[in-house]
Amino acid sequence: MSAIPDDFIRKTARLSAEVTRPFPGSRKIHVQGSRPDIRVPMREIDQGPTQASFGAEENPPIVVYDTSGPFTDPAVEVDLLRGMPDLRSGWIEERADTAVLPGPSSEYGRQRRQDASLDGLRFEHIRPPRRALAGRNVTQMHYARQGVITPEMEFVAIRENCRLQELRADPRYARLLRQHPGQSFGASIPDEITPEFVRAEVAAGRAIIPANVNHPELEPMIIGRNFRVKINTNIGNSAVSSSIAEEVEKMAWSARWGGDTLMDLSTGKNIHETREWILRNAPMPIGTVPIYQALEKVDGKAEELTWEIMRDTLIEQAEQGVDYFTIHAGVLLRYVPLTADRVTGIVSRGGSILAKWCLAHHEENFLYTHFEEICEIMKAYDVAFSLGDGLRPGSLADANDAAQFGELETLGELTRVAWEHDVQVMIEGPGHVPMQMIRENMEKELADCFEAPFYTLGPLVTDVAPGYDHITSGIGAAQIGWYGTAMLCYVTPKEHLGLPNKEDVREGIITYKIAAQAADLAKGFPGAQIRDNAMSKARFEFRWEDQFNLGFDPERAREYHDETMPHDSHKVAHFCSMCGPHFCSMKITQDVREYARSRGLSEEQALAEGMQEKSVEFVEKGAEIYKEI
Amino acid sequence: MSAIPDDFIRKTARLSAEVTRPFPGSRKIHVQGSRPDIRVPMREIDQGPTQASFGAEENPPIVVYDTSGPFTDPAVEVDLLRGMPDLRSGWIEERADTAVLPGPSSEYGRQRRQDASLDGLRFEHIRPPRRALAGRNVTQMHYARQGVITPEMEFVAIRENCRLQELRADPRYARLLRQHPGQSFGASIPDEITPEFVRAEVAAGRAIIPANVNHPELEPMIIGRNFRVKINTNIGNSAVSSSIAEEVEKMAWSARWGGDTLMDLSTGKNIHETREWILRNAPMPIGTVPIYQALEKVDGKAEELTWEIMRDTLIEQAEQGVDYFTIHAGVLLRYVPLTADRVTGIVSRGGSILAKWCLAHHEENFLYTHFEEICEIMKAYDVAFSLGDGLRPGSLADANDAAQFGELETLGELTRVAWEHDVQVMIEGPGHVPMQMIRENMEKELADCFEAPFYTLGPLVTDVAPGYDHITSGIGAAQIGWYGTAMLCYVTPKEHLGLPNKEDVREGIITYKIAAQAADLAKGFPGAQIRDNAMSKARFEFRWEDQFNLGFDPERAREYHDETMPHDSHKVAHFCSMCGPHFCSMKITQDVREYARSRGLSEEQALAEGMQEKSVEFVEKGAEIYKEI
Repeated sequence: MSAIPDDFIRKTARLSAEVTRPFPGSRKIHVQGSRPDIRVPMREIDQGPTQASFGAEENPPIVVYDTSGPFTDPAVEVDLLRGMPDLRSGWIEERADTAVLPGPSSEYGRQRRQDASLDGLRFEHIRPPRRALAGRNVTQMHYARQGVITPEMEFVAIRENCRLQELRADPRYARLLRQHPGQSFGASIPDEITPEFVRAEVAAGRAIIPANVNHPELEPMIIGRNFRVKINTNIGNSAVSSSIAEEVEKMAWSARWGGDTLMDLSTGKNIHETREWILRNAPMPIGTVPIYQALEKVDGKAEELTWEIMRDTLIEQAEQGVDYFTIHAGVLLRYVPLTADRVTGIVSRGGSILAKWCLAHHEENFLYTHFEEICEIMKAYDVAFSLGDGLRPGSLADANDAAQFGELETLGELTRVAWEHDVQVMIEGPGHVPMQMIRENMEKELADCFEAPFYTLGPLVTDVAPGYDHITSGIGAAQIGWYGTAMLCYVTPKEHLGLPNKEDVREGIITYKIAAQAADLAKGFPGAQIRDNAMSKARFEFRWEDQFNLGFDPERAREYHDETMPHDSHKVAHFCSMCGPHFCSMKITQDVREYARSRGLSEEQALAEGMQEKSVEFVEKGAEIYKEI
Repeated sequence: MSAIPDDFIRKTARLSAEVTRPFPGSRKIHVQGSRPDIRVPMREIDQGPTQASFGAEENPPIVVYDTSGPFTDPAVEVDLLRGMPDLRSGWIEERADTAVLPGPSSEYGRQRRQDASLDGLRFEHIRPPRRALAGRNVTQMHYARQGVITPEMEFVAIRENCRLQELRADPRYARLLRQHPGQSFGASIPDEITPEFVRAEVAAGRAIIPANVNHPELEPMIIGRNFRVKINTNIGNSAVSSSIAEEVEKMAWSARWGGDTLMDLSTGKNIHETREWILRNAPMPIGTVPIYQALEKVDGKAEELTWEIMRDTLIEQAEQGVDYFTIHAGVLLRYVPLTADRVTGIVSRGGSILAKWCLAHHEENFLYTHFEEICEIMKAYDVAFSLGDGLRPGSLADANDAAQFGELETLGELTRVAWEHDVQVMIEGPGHVPMQMIRENMEKELADCFEAPFYTLGPLVTDVAPGYDHITSGIGAAQIGWYGTAMLCYVTPKEHLGLPNKEDVREGIITYKIAAQAADLAKGFPGAQIRDNAMSKARFEFRWEDQFNLGFDPERAREYHDETMPHDSHKVAHFCSMCGPHFCSMKITQDVREYARSRGLSEEQALAEGMQEKSVEFVEKGAEIYKEI
């Protein structure tokens, strides 16, 4: 500890209170699986009782999927200097197919370790890396194809269900469980996610569980179109050492608001050390684009990239614990000229680096030509492919063109190759696509890539609203998620303009949580409507605190309510500021409901009888309707 | 003037600078029609030239549809005390089918006029109302069915086209005009919107032009699914006189950001006077829900409402110039019990008032039983119906249920009745609907209501994100707009929580402009992609000022860019803050493009030749690629 400057420790040992503050009215719970070391975190939101005027009943707690890791758990003492609890090492060890290495096997990893000048920056409790024994394959896909249900698979099955089976057996949830039938566009979501279903989906390549053996802190999660739609967030772009603490804070901030996975896009001198801090504290899968770091190693000169540098970078990062790599192996030489007439050419950083390399050498993309060797690395650590869409459109004008779809076909070819190695694969997708052309993207991806999970950025459905691209893209994200995209890469309001700050990140995440929730509802994911139903009931019954707490962003909801109605008494008000106490449709409805029910008027016939005394009664009763608080 | 307190004059004579500030880099233009008094406002956004490194060319100005009225026109001296310029009186007079009345013919209108205590509140230059001569019908639908193309129809035809025909003849726009084919779901959008097409659509009832003869300040616009998708905004809820100025300011603020129509939902004592101020200064159609005011007249007691009070209110408001009335005539007695088992009952204020009235009297809704008489009023002033969806769902749980769809069928029946009177009709729709159930709403509306324009609130596609309901609803709005909804009623971030402030209104409007633009693109509205293409080109060429100016919210885009890159020199930077100068995919692409083009490499074949010297050249050239500014 002594090697780390005091200032740095102070900054990194703790997260800020706004990150760790528990969600109001909520409790972290853990659901145990078939063995005591499978403990799946969830959040339970308590609800207040329904007041007498609305029928006086208790409202049961609502269980929600929880990405926030140990950060918001008051029972856990977060110590960033130590890293997060190790959940998976036992599972990995008992498989007895990996060995702990004496130290990094990448050239670069060794250099960094030996550089004493970095001691002050370095995470202190680095584990030695673990790698598959010779001839062994340690991917979740490999196990799945062998018929093995891993603890990771059981963990995600429990996580996806969110206790749905128990709620179904509990009469208090009967009304809350009502859900409209979904429209699934060929997805086959079962009524209950079993560990065996998870295994079968992973074996078929329709889902992936990114879970590097060197990331034992991970709370496993699954990406596939027969599961909940997930969202990815991004951090990065810090080049100075003092901001390692900020990057870790951003990672935890993303977890808090609902990021399911996180890509570390950091560039700059100390990305190796930054990545270590992030991984050791990250409860979610971490992805990277290794070519960014490879490029740094050749001082930004794309044409000087080599397979050897790239290979060393892949091993370096795999041994740190990165769970998925974006690999732009589909940017083929022959596709590059297809971008020349585009309005916005190549907008993917990785895509443009490789396009430049291909043209400079007039050779085929070295990630493509060395793809089998990459697979060998991936399966030794269980790093999943995120096959990059280096030729994705950067504008509506360029959507669904020959370059984009040519690359997609190549990604399909590479998917087959990866699957021959039992390496997990997801496919990256666009980008900027007008609404009427979104579905074609999904259909083509499923066909060309054999149903490997699709992972898209947005898409933005119009280009005319810089400053609001979380919204232009959230519209597209909801749709493509409905059509079958398994994970949505978030976009913040600063997209195309600048670097997102914390508030932008929160805004982007919530927007994407909305898109993912809308997609789950539309697909008919079992139990997806419980939270909506609970919110609607709370709304109808003027349970303001419950409305805040059940929402994706309780803090903002409360703050907005406070702006108009700041007093505590208003939090139990039987009206809202929009219409005021005398003019509330919810209240009138309640009267209608009581009237109809008390008189057995739920049949049309009963009303048609038209008994005059009833209307007299109602008028008399009506005089008492408005009870101000 | 002397009767109005000084303070009030100061507050109302001018709008605040943030409302009237012209849009940067923009010019108000007017396109003249077949006669000099048809002058259609538009906005032209200038673009800077493309810099040498990107090919050195001039970029032509982009014409955009402009809702902002005279407020942002530096050539117009806005005097709220006088009201806006009178565009339509000449057109109305030359039709010679109306008479100017000596004063208000509503009882309530006369009372208010005679009340000297209101002099200080009253707009000073009130015109005497105008009404159809006995036996005449002054609706745009009536003229259309007679084969008459009114100046209003020509105005909207020019407005919808946004000079598209001229741009098509101008080679500078050739690339910008490229557009993906739309998917129209049965809409029939012509290649050019002609006045005759407008007439035919209005005659068929597929579109409406809300244009009361008592609102001559109006800049006519059209609502129909073969035209641009429109958005409605709301103001209201002020009960105190001092806020009249605020309401007028809000109206102009709405116009500035892109509101196509505006509903004045004000309640409270002085709504008659407030409405006059708004109408006399409003360039957009104004809608109301007359039953709100009628309810005020009976001190909020729904059961005391009578047809006579309602009738007087309709005439009062029609003579002030309200362009469309929300009329909840489809809330039938027999539908009310169908809401009893809902999670959120009746959430429409109008719907709940009428449900209460129906139950109290055990009689059929008086708006339904007096519907023909309402039509007689509507056609004497040309007020359009917005047939209210009083039984719309207030939660996902209640979407598409028997109450909602029962009412929709009745709205179809009423549409037929209104059309027999040549009265214009649009149909209000939900609300809260999960994505997979949205399309059914549109299809049922078109079938049941004979293609009358649909006007929906959102719909929200999930209920779990209070504080973000502009987004939950914007997702649904974009989709239903694509499917055929003609106008989208906006939702602000404060929905369900409190009253929107100015920033909330702006946020809600831009979100809905995005939804409408996305829908226009998806439907393939001619020319809809020009602005997107211009933005994308500006983005690729790092023309930052143009990117800001071409956006829906130039001020926010600039502010966000300034946060990371505040210097003026950055506004011409050939890179952005996301990747920095050495790592920019746009720049690399530009190199790829130049390379491919200069060597005729746009053919796959050319690349396949693989001449080694070319890659050598490229490497040499590559050394010069990054030119920092």
